[in-house]
Amino acid sequence: MMQEHRRASETRLERGRRALAEIDGQAGENVVAALADIAPDFATYLIEFPFGDIYSRPGLDLRAREIATIAALTAMGTAAPQLKVHIEAGLNVGITRDEITEIMMQMAVYAGFPAALNGLSAAKDVFGNRDAHTLPQTA
Amino acid sequence: MMQEHRRASETRLERGRRALAEIDGQAGENVVAALADIAPDFATYLIEFPFGDIYSRPGLDLRAREIATIAALTAMGTAAPQLKVHIEAGLNVGITRDEITEIMMQMAVYAGFPAALNGLSAAKDVFGNRDAHTLPQTA
Amino acid sequence: MMQEHRRASETRLERGRRALAEIDGQAGENVVAALADIAPDFATYLIEFPFGDIYSRPGLDLRAREIATIAALTAMGTAAPQLKVHIEAGLNVGITRDEITEIMMQMAVYAGFPAALNGLSAAKDVFGNRDAHTLPQTA
Amino acid sequence: MMQEHRRASETRLERGRRALAEIDGQAGENVVAALADIAPDFATYLIEFPFGDIYSRPGLDLRAREIATIAALTAMGTAAPQLKVHIEAGLNVGITRDEITEIMMQMAVYAGFPAALNGLSAAKDVFGNRDAHTLPQTA
Amino acid sequence: MMQEHRRASETRLERGRRALAEIDGQAGENVVAALADIAPDFATYLIEFPFGDIYSRPGLDLRAREIATIAALTAMGTAAPQLKVHIEAGLNVGITRDEITEIMMQMAVYAGFPAALNGLSAAKDVFGNRDAHTLPQTA
Amino acid sequence: MMQEHRRASETRLERGRRALAEIDGQAGENVVAALADIAPDFATYLIEFPFGDIYSRPGLDLRAREIATIAALTAMGTAAPQLKVHIEAGLNVGITRDEITEIMMQMAVYAGFPAALNGLSAAKDVFGNRDAHTLPQTA
Repeated sequence: MMQEHRRASETRLERGRRALAEIDGQAGENVVAALADIAPDFATYLIEFPFGDIYSRPGLDLRAREIATIAALTAMGTAAPQLKVHIEAGLNVGITRDEITEIMMQMAVYAGFPAALNGLSAAKDVFGNRDAHTLPQTA
Repeated sequence: MMQEHRRASETRLERGRRALAEIDGQAGENVVAALADIAPDFATYLIEFPFGDIYSRPGLDLRAREIATIAALTAMGTAAPQLKVHIEAGLNVGITRDEITEIMMQMAVYAGFPAALNGLSAAKDVFGNRDAHTLPQTA
Repeated sequence: MMQEHRRASETRLERGRRALAEIDGQAGENVVAALADIAPDFATYLIEFPFGDIYSRPGLDLRAREIATIAALTAMGTAAPQLKVHIEAGLNVGITRDEITEIMMQMAVYAGFPAALNGLSAAKDVFGNRDAHTLPQTA
Repeated sequence: MMQEHRRASETRLERGRRALAEIDGQAGENVVAALADIAPDFATYLIEFPFGDIYSRPGLDLRAREIATIAALTAMGTAAPQLKVHIEAGLNVGITRDEITEIMMQMAVYAGFPAALNGLSAAKDVFGNRDAHTLPQTA
Repeated sequence: MMQEHRRASETRLERGRRALAEIDGQAGENVVAALADIAPDFATYLIEFPFGDIYSRPGLDLRAREIATIAALTAMGTAAPQLKVHIEAGLNVGITRDEITEIMMQMAVYAGFPAALNGLSAAKDVFGNRDAHTLPQTA
Repeated sequence: MMQEHRRASETRLERGRRALAEIDGQAGENVVAALADIAPDFATYLIEFPFGDIYSRPGLDLRAREIATIAALTAMGTAAPQLKVHIEAGLNVGITRDEITEIMMQMAVYAGFPAALNGLSAAKDVFGNRDAHTLPQTA
């Protein structure tokens, strides 16, 4: 179930691009695109260090990594846009909606009920947005 | 691998005591004991809500729950004693030392290098303390 | 002046519902309603632990409890929606607008001027919203 | 019970010194003394703005002000030495030990259980230290 | 290049008004104006302490002071409106757009990539708003 | 005064080692050494990304970079060991003790007086430690 993260001939940037696409999908592309005119070098760092270095390491699977990230961003409470990207990412790597909801409820214990409530609100937005784009085309 | 969390006849306090013992072991007992003379009711709430309610829910296994908690406490950076308790707890529920180290390295991405360094320092203390209590009795 | 918080025959949920209604009024109902489709169990925990357990304890009156909460949420700066709910709650339990403003000004000392300014901005929104719903019906 | 905070002929520094002595007692003097060789001007600002300006304002009594400060510092979790000073200050202005414990327990709701536990630990230290200095001189 | 910060006959309020106008320009005026109906005394404190006392001190030039403030607000992540005011202020005192971008990128190291991304997003808004008001009047 | 940061043939690791030695000196070496047995890869990342990538960028001089870092770590209040390393680093790149003190006093405005007081306390420790190692050898 653990993908082979690293390929010998890849640069960090190539490996990071591959990891970013696998994990964050379109949401990751949007973050990179938004940096193009103000800090393009930062887009490169963002691909290289978090994705090319950290997420590509073999010692922890992507499911565990996204659980860690969703928990941390919910607890910190200062990263609403990034939390939404990683709720998407969590769903992309196989975490269920119910599991994401469990993580956020658990954060009430460590960061307080407001952190959990704001995390649940972000999850509700992401889930609702996904549903809006995948509704059955019924008449 | 998922233990049966809930038993019909248990109170929240009983269920919480059972979960606390399974997850935090002696470190959890110490936290409860330290509250005895200043806020004994808070020890009860601590057992009932986090452990009797949250950790006993079936929707997320204990391994995932401790990954979430270790990540959150490392990222927050304001809960050094509790982080150590949950590094112990993580080891108790089957997370490896290397996985804990991976979680902390990943937190550099979301909460900065100081948060990761302080998390690694806490892990080093816990690991060293465990080793000191399990050294082979060689002459 | 201290209401009798606890009644022997009540469950935590019943006691929490009573406390939530007394303290947060409609704003509390809205928080609970917003959780209905994503995390209904969390609505139960929110009523039971903060309101059924903590706010119902007799050792501190509701005025003091809301002063503590408004101060904490203003200082943390990560809980804007919850701060507004508790500004409402503070007014509900008898704290005056001027006292709320004093608390926020004081938070400049402990959490910095931005925290105080954002707290005052939240208060201004809540006060303005209240005024908009209670304007005299004059021709 | 509300002291007359302001006297017409006082400077901010004089008024602040009076308020600091009333509220923080010896602990406040120690903070000022520690600044003498590194940032004496900051000691002046500390007396003038928080104490000469804010705490001397008539719109909120000192009991309410210290409840707000103890709650905020407990929730923030980044100001352990200052929290201890204000637990002392709270006792000085008439808040009871049990009320301080209630405030900290309540902070579990807003900032998480670790914040509350660390606050209770600080309170235990301050209470114990007070007891050690006031034990009956029995043989 | 260091302006003479203090004039003997000025009050703190006068000195603060002068510093606020020089540093924050119109954005500072807007903050003060927004306080007029809810907490006018706080507007006075805001002018007196941060600007009349701190920013008017001769020991650090305004360029260095704004670098410090932009870095701190970006790292804290809880003061979005104030960060924008100080990006404006930084430009007012001679920090370039590229330097502001460098500061924010650096904050990824200390407060994580989300803090840096949100800081860059704030900078992009401020730069874009400036450009919108200074576009050449071409037909 | 701006060193030439980058050399064409250097790897990120080599460039980072050079920057780390120039900026943090012995304190930086100690951080790297402490990681050797628990997370040696993280020592590599720490050298490569913050120092090889960020601090080596030509768009902001090291004095400005250390002002930003000292301000951010003081304001965050969760990184006491790293703040001390960067007070050392600030002195290494030419920031004076008085300027460091000014930065910390200014942080009272943005992060509150406790953050400033704890920053000043860290500075006092670093300054005192430096003095203890450079005292004249008088009889």
